[in-house]
Amino acid sequence: MKIDHIGIAVKSLADAVKVYEDAIGLKVSSYETVEDQGVKLAMIPLGDSRIELLEPFHADSPVEKFIAKRGEGIHHIALSVDNIEEALERFKATGARLIDTVPRRGAHNSRIAFIHPSSAHGVLLELVEHAK
Amino acid sequence: MKIDHIGIAVKSLADAVKVYEDAIGLKVSSYETVEDQGVKLAMIPLGDSRIELLEPFHADSPVEKFIAKRGEGIHHIALSVDNIEEALERFKATGARLIDTVPRRGAHNSRIAFIHPSSAHGVLLELVEHAK
Repeated sequence: MKIDHIGIAVKSLADAVKVYEDAIGLKVSSYETVEDQGVKLAMIPLGDSRIELLEPFHADSPVEKFIAKRGEGIHHIALSVDNIEEALERFKATGARLIDTVPRRGAHNSRIAFIHPSSAHGVLLELVEHAK
Repeated sequence: MKIDHIGIAVKSLADAVKVYEDAIGLKVSSYETVEDQGVKLAMIPLGDSRIELLEPFHADSPVEKFIAKRGEGIHHIALSVDNIEEALERFKATGARLIDTVPRRGAHNSRIAFIHPSSAHGVLLELVEHAK
């Protein structure tokens, strides 16, 4: 298991990328659009993990709501797991509140599921099983 | 460069460790006390990085103030760098607001410096140079 990525909610990808490229010296590897989350994202590889900067592009995006409520900042932590059903079962067994009780499709044929922050001490956790 | 650790502010280490050990299946490698930050912490190795759960033990701890204001959740992201002076100079050159303009002593003879969240889109960033 590892930290797959850290998702950071920002108002402007262009502005935020400047910090990570100019001040920190990292490089964006790709830009993507995730329609069902209403976000454009910039992926920044970092060790065996990556940072994903997330800019919402419509008012119904959960990331837009997050920024409206809390301001810019860290939105979620994603953990890569070998078997997402097993990982979800382990959470269920502890009585955790799940946002996704069954995995849904993520980017690049991955399967993902979110755990509610109320069951992870204020952290929105994403589980990711990458396509084999 | 890599994600050195993610710091998560929690009210109770014992409760939070349960989530990471029982529901996620990770293991705490060590517990430490950081007097000048007023926190007890649990280190949880994860890939080439780690999660640090932080429980404040006095009212003046910055982590206590964070929890009082925002609730439990992700407190900071730490990036390991080879040369912390160079990294700080790069931030200064962009006009960033630094919490530490010069490095201070961290755990295990590391040197650390914090960048203010207002200069990193809401993220409290820590730079860490580990002892060689």
